[in-house]
Amino acid sequence: MSLSMYHASIPLFIRGLAILHKAASHAEAKQIAPDVFLNARLAPDMFPLLRQVQIVSDTAKGCAARLAGVEVPSYPDIETSFAELQERIAKTVTFLKDLAPAQVDGSEERPITLKMHTQEVHFTGQAYLLGFALPNFYFHLTTAYGILRHNGVDIGKKDYLGEV
Amino acid sequence: MSLSMYHASIPLFIRGLAILHKAASHAEAKQIAPDVFLNARLAPDMFPLLRQVQIVSDTAKGCAARLAGVEVPSYPDIETSFAELQERIAKTVTFLKDLAPAQVDGSEERPITLKMHTQEVHFTGQAYLLGFALPNFYFHLTTAYGILRHNGVDIGKKDYLGEV
Repeated sequence: MSLSMYHASIPLFIRGLAILHKAASHAEAKQIAPDVFLNARLAPDMFPLLRQVQIVSDTAKGCAARLAGVEVPSYPDIETSFAELQERIAKTVTFLKDLAPAQVDGSEERPITLKMHTQEVHFTGQAYLLGFALPNFYFHLTTAYGILRHNGVDIGKKDYLGEV
Repeated sequence: MSLSMYHASIPLFIRGLAILHKAASHAEAKQIAPDVFLNARLAPDMFPLLRQVQIVSDTAKGCAARLAGVEVPSYPDIETSFAELQERIAKTVTFLKDLAPAQVDGSEERPITLKMHTQEVHFTGQAYLLGFALPNFYFHLTTAYGILRHNGVDIGKKDYLGEV
């Protein structure tokens, strides 16, 4: 089976979001004031956990929708608790699961335009997925993981990689 | 152009290693005793920067070689300085650049066997790349980046994503 745009995106996003769900559950289980975790960051000018999770969600739903040529669902960034973040993660996964492989496959050359700050950036679907969305997705997922590990949450590399 | 195993692996590894090269150069430029950075970690039971960089290199060269069906080059883990890490990064990039797309393309169904601790894990080339090598590569790359950011090194998200 040759490599497909669907397999190189949607299942990877779903798996990453499952990691985030598990990591957030472990953090919640510590029964420490949730703000401690949600506002924790690795450096003063890096985003805190709460925002990292929102960006993981945004990267996944944005990439999936753009490749499929459907409207990017808008989730307002209003979460203030683990429960709300878990809802957002679940909502993102549901959106991803509702996309059929046929909607995403064949999007290699689909023109993708992103508004970034004051400029527009143009990609093909393939360049967008491989050079932008996936590295970004893993960046924010790993940073969320790193914030939790740095703060003593009991998760491990096998939670990140899942069953192999 | 349809998605290819080569494009979904080698250029992404080369770009990631360039990020690591740049981040390590910024750390070196701080003129702080290099051990401070090389032994820094985000949590006591996570690997320090030095090992993160070695694993980024190992993941890239291991994946590339296995997909291409050539022997995985063995680089002993003996680095103790930024200069030696930079050499390893450069050596890895040279190995990756020497692989032709035709060697990697078509490896979707190639059987890949990894020895992990006491067991062997079997993948197809595609499952190995998407479900194991890429997430692992970005995990260790982002963690190396996070360690440096946490220690005040002046790098930013645009160094991670590169020019888009």
